[in-house]
Amino acid sequence: MTESVEMLTKTQHLFDDATRVTAGDSRWQGQTSDDYWAFVGPFGGATAATILRALIDHPQRNGDPLALTVNFCAPIAQGAFDLDVRLVKANRSTQHWSVELSQDGAEVATFATAVFAERRPSWSHQQAEFPQAPPFEQILPYPKVAAPWVKQYDFRFVEGDPDFGATPQAAPTNAFSKLWIGDRVPRNIDMLSLMSMSDAFFGRIFHARRELVPFGTVSLTTYFHADAEDLVREGISRVLAVADAKIFHKSYGDQSGELWSPNGRLLATTHQIGYFKA
Amino acid sequence: MTESVEMLTKTQHLFDDATRVTAGDSRWQGQTSDDYWAFVGPFGGATAATILRALIDHPQRNGDPLALTVNFCAPIAQGAFDLDVRLVKANRSTQHWSVELSQDGAEVATFATAVFAERRPSWSHQQAEFPQAPPFEQILPYPKVAAPWVKQYDFRFVEGDPDFGATPQAAPTNAFSKLWIGDRVPRNIDMLSLMSMSDAFFGRIFHARRELVPFGTVSLTTYFHADAEDLVREGISRVLAVADAKIFHKSYGDQSGELWSPNGRLLATTHQIGYFKA
Repeated sequence: MTESVEMLTKTQHLFDDATRVTAGDSRWQGQTSDDYWAFVGPFGGATAATILRALIDHPQRNGDPLALTVNFCAPIAQGAFDLDVRLVKANRSTQHWSVELSQDGAEVATFATAVFAERRPSWSHQQAEFPQAPPFEQILPYPKVAAPWVKQYDFRFVEGDPDFGATPQAAPTNAFSKLWIGDRVPRNIDMLSLMSMSDAFFGRIFHARRELVPFGTVSLTTYFHADAEDLVREGISRVLAVADAKIFHKSYGDQSGELWSPNGRLLATTHQIGYFKA
Repeated sequence: MTESVEMLTKTQHLFDDATRVTAGDSRWQGQTSDDYWAFVGPFGGATAATILRALIDHPQRNGDPLALTVNFCAPIAQGAFDLDVRLVKANRSTQHWSVELSQDGAEVATFATAVFAERRPSWSHQQAEFPQAPPFEQILPYPKVAAPWVKQYDFRFVEGDPDFGATPQAAPTNAFSKLWIGDRVPRNIDMLSLMSMSDAFFGRIFHARRELVPFGTVSLTTYFHADAEDLVREGISRVLAVADAKIFHKSYGDQSGELWSPNGRLLATTHQIGYFKA
């Protein structure tokens, strides 16, 4: 009975399939998903969520994810990978983790550090303002599917609807986007999907240039401003997200993003720096 | 002659003293500085800059710092520390590094990952707007010195001048600050001082609460938007900096910052999440 329930849970959603890990102690296993495949490797958000899942499922884990930094060092090939998970330091209420992803005993392809924390009650203040937007239901889904992973999400652009493939403009356009993001097959937002969605913005360079150019995230950091209990209480299956860039210079550009509950609560902030060729 | 010049360089500025490292291969040594001491340990910016110096000075280093993430795991005691430096993965134009700081063979106290990159020419676009501010010379230095490290900087507040110690207010005040930051004894801005200054903002919680409360940075990430050559060309000894927070919740709060050249160029962006007790 337990087993069948577990199997059902495991095959319930493609995202859970894609980010599945098998238990180890310091060494865990996962594998890339064709459903969440990007142009030349797995969608980085799925890789990040898989790393986070190994940490959340780890028997020594305490508290909830507070910060996750993922450095994408080298392409990940289709197939299985190993996760070398290490608890670097544990304090009374925080844990510092390191995760190295490799394939076939080769060099590290993805390198992550994470902080987990027991979120104790405190003075609370949300200074950032909820971005105003028409409801999800009133906006048409983004129809232009470029890569398999994009099909797994329901993107509904409020602002900054991408129009790649148009004639590149001489003057750069604004890189700002505001959009609803949900799983194509609705799934309750948890730490894993928040992590994945924090990498689900299209490259800011595409927006700024209005064209697709070679692009890859180099380093990504996401901060969680809600704990697992907060997320359960929200009970939501999509987020309102904004993303923007400040600068593109000498082949690298930044991105900042916010993921909001439709109820007006800031759930996560995310930052990345990426390579581009333009 | 070479030796005396080198010695002169090394003792020229307290910051260089504070962030000095002695060469190793995978293991480097540094030590805390009383000049850059904070309340219960070394100023995090000095620690981060020391880690960055070990990487920049490393014989295998290629390119310039692109991203540095520093996780502060445990207090660092006064005295010497070891830096365990590891080149995790090198590609054609990027390098991924890991640095673990420990003392007396004990557990890791600070854990960092870094990306270095050869910054090739590309399409360039600075979308962020230079924050307007009166010149450095027209603003009085911040006089309230709380900790030794603060004395090493010349802070000149344009907005968000802190007024800690006033009666804590019922309603939170805005956490935004705009200020000039220079070394108290002027020193040309390089990658090391940019790194250090990216952690030189006062805790946003102090601003939001208008009082000093227990606070500590947990994880800090800085992205560099200029390479060493760009910085030399700027030839500046101070930056115009802005910092803000989006949320304080369940004992943790975020901070985003920008470091600008007075010439209008965005040099670095920085993000951190910190613990507070309030």
